[in-house]
Amino acid sequence: MLNVGIVGATGYAGEELIDILLRHPGARITDISAKIAAPQKIARIFPKFAGRLDLVCKEPRIKEITAKCDLVFLALPHTVSMDMAPALLAAGKSVIDLSADYRLKDVKVYEKFYQHKQKDKVNLAKAVYGLPELYRAKIKNARLIANPGCYPTASILALAPLAAVGAADLGSIIINASSGVTGAGRKAAQDFFFSELNENFKAYKINNHQHAPEINQELSKLSGKKLVVTFVPHLLPVNRGILTTIYVRKSHHVTKSQGHPLISLYKNFYKKEPFVRIREEGDFPQLKDVVNTNFCDIAIKEEAGQVIIIAAIDNLLKGASGQAVQNMNIMYGFSEYTALL
Amino acid sequence: MLNVGIVGATGYAGEELIDILLRHPGARITDISAKIAAPQKIARIFPKFAGRLDLVCKEPRIKEITAKCDLVFLALPHTVSMDMAPALLAAGKSVIDLSADYRLKDVKVYEKFYQHKQKDKVNLAKAVYGLPELYRAKIKNARLIANPGCYPTASILALAPLAAVGAADLGSIIINASSGVTGAGRKAAQDFFFSELNENFKAYKINNHQHAPEINQELSKLSGKKLVVTFVPHLLPVNRGILTTIYVRKSHHVTKSQGHPLISLYKNFYKKEPFVRIREEGDFPQLKDVVNTNFCDIAIKEEAGQVIIIAAIDNLLKGASGQAVQNMNIMYGFSEYTALL
Amino acid sequence: MLNVGIVGATGYAGEELIDILLRHPGARITDISAKIAAPQKIARIFPKFAGRLDLVCKEPRIKEITAKCDLVFLALPHTVSMDMAPALLAAGKSVIDLSADYRLKDVKVYEKFYQHKQKDKVNLAKAVYGLPELYRAKIKNARLIANPGCYPTASILALAPLAAVGAADLGSIIINASSGVTGAGRKAAQDFFFSELNENFKAYKINNHQHAPEINQELSKLSGKKLVVTFVPHLLPVNRGILTTIYVRKSHHVTKSQGHPLISLYKNFYKKEPFVRIREEGDFPQLKDVVNTNFCDIAIKEEAGQVIIIAAIDNLLKGASGQAVQNMNIMYGFSEYTALL
Amino acid sequence: MLNVGIVGATGYAGEELIDILLRHPGARITDISAKIAAPQKIARIFPKFAGRLDLVCKEPRIKEITAKCDLVFLALPHTVSMDMAPALLAAGKSVIDLSADYRLKDVKVYEKFYQHKQKDKVNLAKAVYGLPELYRAKIKNARLIANPGCYPTASILALAPLAAVGAADLGSIIINASSGVTGAGRKAAQDFFFSELNENFKAYKINNHQHAPEINQELSKLSGKKLVVTFVPHLLPVNRGILTTIYVRKSHHVTKSQGHPLISLYKNFYKKEPFVRIREEGDFPQLKDVVNTNFCDIAIKEEAGQVIIIAAIDNLLKGASGQAVQNMNIMYGFSEYTALL
Repeated sequence: MLNVGIVGATGYAGEELIDILLRHPGARITDISAKIAAPQKIARIFPKFAGRLDLVCKEPRIKEITAKCDLVFLALPHTVSMDMAPALLAAGKSVIDLSADYRLKDVKVYEKFYQHKQKDKVNLAKAVYGLPELYRAKIKNARLIANPGCYPTASILALAPLAAVGAADLGSIIINASSGVTGAGRKAAQDFFFSELNENFKAYKINNHQHAPEINQELSKLSGKKLVVTFVPHLLPVNRGILTTIYVRKSHHVTKSQGHPLISLYKNFYKKEPFVRIREEGDFPQLKDVVNTNFCDIAIKEEAGQVIIIAAIDNLLKGASGQAVQNMNIMYGFSEYTALL
Repeated sequence: MLNVGIVGATGYAGEELIDILLRHPGARITDISAKIAAPQKIARIFPKFAGRLDLVCKEPRIKEITAKCDLVFLALPHTVSMDMAPALLAAGKSVIDLSADYRLKDVKVYEKFYQHKQKDKVNLAKAVYGLPELYRAKIKNARLIANPGCYPTASILALAPLAAVGAADLGSIIINASSGVTGAGRKAAQDFFFSELNENFKAYKINNHQHAPEINQELSKLSGKKLVVTFVPHLLPVNRGILTTIYVRKSHHVTKSQGHPLISLYKNFYKKEPFVRIREEGDFPQLKDVVNTNFCDIAIKEEAGQVIIIAAIDNLLKGASGQAVQNMNIMYGFSEYTALL
Repeated sequence: MLNVGIVGATGYAGEELIDILLRHPGARITDISAKIAAPQKIARIFPKFAGRLDLVCKEPRIKEITAKCDLVFLALPHTVSMDMAPALLAAGKSVIDLSADYRLKDVKVYEKFYQHKQKDKVNLAKAVYGLPELYRAKIKNARLIANPGCYPTASILALAPLAAVGAADLGSIIINASSGVTGAGRKAAQDFFFSELNENFKAYKINNHQHAPEINQELSKLSGKKLVVTFVPHLLPVNRGILTTIYVRKSHHVTKSQGHPLISLYKNFYKKEPFVRIREEGDFPQLKDVVNTNFCDIAIKEEAGQVIIIAAIDNLLKGASGQAVQNMNIMYGFSEYTALL
Repeated sequence: MLNVGIVGATGYAGEELIDILLRHPGARITDISAKIAAPQKIARIFPKFAGRLDLVCKEPRIKEITAKCDLVFLALPHTVSMDMAPALLAAGKSVIDLSADYRLKDVKVYEKFYQHKQKDKVNLAKAVYGLPELYRAKIKNARLIANPGCYPTASILALAPLAAVGAADLGSIIINASSGVTGAGRKAAQDFFFSELNENFKAYKINNHQHAPEINQELSKLSGKKLVVTFVPHLLPVNRGILTTIYVRKSHHVTKSQGHPLISLYKNFYKKEPFVRIREEGDFPQLKDVVNTNFCDIAIKEEAGQVIIIAAIDNLLKGASGQAVQNMNIMYGFSEYTALL
């Protein structure tokens, strides 16, 4: 039985981790902590866990966590994770970090977008970007996972086959993305009040969202060329889910030499993946096809030189906690599906 | 042209007052103020007013307000209004107060439910409860209006004919009410975040909401007997609207002597009212029949000694700002419908 | 491995049954059928099941179903179930019927409320009302389960301890209930369009809903006295969940002799129940505490002779398909929690 | 007093026309009709109009309409309008058609996208495309207005200044649009049920929506070059509102010679327009800024050769009935604001 701890248990990702791990036959939650005024039973904070998990949530203390856990999930705000990860790693624990702290290999890019110093370059160098579809082999042996962002998960999975093969004009990528509200985390900002978001819809951080460099990093790596996407996120009046509608121009030379449509390329690229589903021609994913699942559904349409790719995930599952547990399953030799179906 | 000021312009009721008054041919908004970090154009705060109202919103200053306005709407939190009203009244201005500060005639009840001292007993004695259907004559000559609460408006209108006539067992009144989220005001509480309320529904302040004594006061007055209702409010995942489902037992003796059904009683009671509509038998109001209107729609069903009354209003219009302007219309001799249709 | 069939797989309850049973380690879905224009892969109808269930949904045929299944779930509209159940039972299969056809023991009451003849009185006599908290022993040995309605599940569980003990004036019960939209089933009525229900709220079938006699039957049985509740359902703009706010007067003599508060009575009554949770004093359930779970959360407040009980369930889980699988678990000796946590 | 009729009064656009016209001091609704089983008071169909409009809605009859009305709004499904308009025009009446029947000047394009013969080429030639910002002078003297589609209104207004000046690579236009549910009309399709759309989001008619040719027609006309946009509409879980996020590449030569930023170009282009508002740099419109208004709010951001334009309207107001009344105001010499603020 694997003993796991969750730091940041009171946020959306932490809450979702508890929900998933309570269904996991090979793992046991042994410690939960969060920035909290006073220790409190988790069932008081989330009554839905009453009768299911009898633990007290308190401020995280490294000693206690390392004494009780083999693996620790950090579901913390960006810049807070790197204050905790080093001690946990030094104590021989494994860490899956759901923040952005270990995702961006270029420290300058991190510091520009997160407005904070990267203080743990040693572990940054060792961290594995936890997108199983691209890094499964490395994840198996990793001690520190940088769990991908929600928008990047959907965007990278939607573009990886094209980027890997060079089948498109990678300079022309436009990612128009829309996310449910939990994507922003549980924070006290008037912008996230019900009456501000209900019956509303808006774009935000127009082409300067901190997830863009994460997408750029991975697609550049895949394609072998430095590329920069245009990325405009929008806020949907729903609790969960991300839908990305992506526009990219086809490279004529490539498709001719390939001689097969893009759907086949995608099906082939993901043929062994448990959580990526490619749609047949003319069939497109909706949020409700993936919400409450760990799947990423992808559809491709090409027409007159224009390729349109639509991808959907649940931002709290494949976009955060589901993917984190998928990474845990890989690291500890569980079936990847465990607790995720 | 009537010059009006709005104090508390950044809240939901203040925003709605601006919206209504911009359509009023006989009134002109001459001052807007609110608790605000720095003065700001109202169109920056509410872009929907861009091109329509070119005023700066700043901290309220009595001198400026009295210099510019004939009538002042106080759309302030409870207990803040009574700090401002006395000076405005002393300067000869009229005041329509949308808070609870001047609603409860019994100071002890006010202090118990609002946990604050009633500091302005002189004006409390002169304040008129601004429910036009009950106090139109007094409103005409009032200088200080205590604009009713949202739940009380729906509840009192739903029960006034019964209370006035004694056609029911007034000791048995159960008011099960549900409100949209704007009813709680624009305040920074995690309880009101989108993801906490969307796809959710709950009862709150179960039988100890501060609007209960307001309902008790008015129904007791109407019936001539001290009565206490059971009142359970609920929070709906919608922006606007209140629906109350009320249960009361019929008094047998009365209905026999009356010899006519309750619907007629209600139609008769409200026959001259511009904003109360009584439904025919078997036809019941929904929120959407009244949202964005100043109407209160009421339906009555009686069966085997049980009377069920359903009433619906828009909490920001008939339940707050619409009613405030209706009161203004009465005070200044405008048609009651002005700016409210 | 238990082989199960689902008739009515395209409705909300059928869809939910698939979702639950796909997680059940001891059961296997071997046949799915529904009223459908042409046979279709279930993953085309519900893309969320793509890669998880590779079955074709077609019109139900008794022979095929009995050949493939040990147990059949009927997730059919009322009055359609009793056309299928007899043949399945005659073929030696077990049946869990999610419709109302076998719930009401009094044929006249059924025929009045469902406007249809009860055509299968033989099996009606043998059917067990599938509320585990009241009938677990009988369910164990049943061949035909009448799975309870959604409103009755919440209402009966909320009132059973009171009814069993006689601790309240059972003539005074008022059930004010609110349900999410899936409660009405997937049917083609303009009333259920998004724009009609979104930002709306209404009462419907005011005190003449077909679930009232089901509640009356069970509470009368428990209390040993014929009682009739006042029942007003409302339609919430959410997908899932039922919240009932119940008002009942305390019987003074009983509570005195009992000498303990009602919360203890409830905790004691349900102490061995896996899916009923009683709240501590002052703590009340919200929809989100139970949505996507099989729990029924109940809170009780008493004050000056008035008892207020609030109960919440997910209408598609404890109110339909979750409870159906709970019944299956009891019938076949699985842990009651299996696939339901 | 202008006498107006509404054909198709039971749809969303018809309902909205009633709402607007009831506030219009210079117009009077004298006839309302729709495809309807039996004549019915409009207040039975829409209880919100009770006490405000005492007309019976029945099947449209040309004779009755021409006897009672000077101007007729056709709020009918596409292909039905052109069955009625000729007779009304022949009787000397003016017609504002909210369907697509008279919008597309190229009959072949109409017939391809609407799958129906264009049967009234005579009036098609005379019809004026009712976008006041482009055709105000012609609208003044028109007898038949083809009121623009909702997506085209937002898209054309967002791109007109660029198209008119040639400041962008018009071959690269990508319009990513999202609409509230009323945009689809009040029709009996399971796709539009609450539980299908709530908490959901999807793209549809991906790059083959019938509004694309309308956008192409107008932008080609403005720019003097035949252009074809990429247009992907999405369905939002809100009642009202359209937000378009548009991507287009800057033409370097133009911007250099112009020497001023695009925001100035837009402000200048729309400087006399009552219902177009251009945002300052860094300030972007949300749905809630325009819902329940007739405004179109537009923001422009340019960066490294990429121009991003965001435009928002209320699909039922500026995108349908509000614009129709704006056209009426122009035709009959009312202030354009009348009944629209």
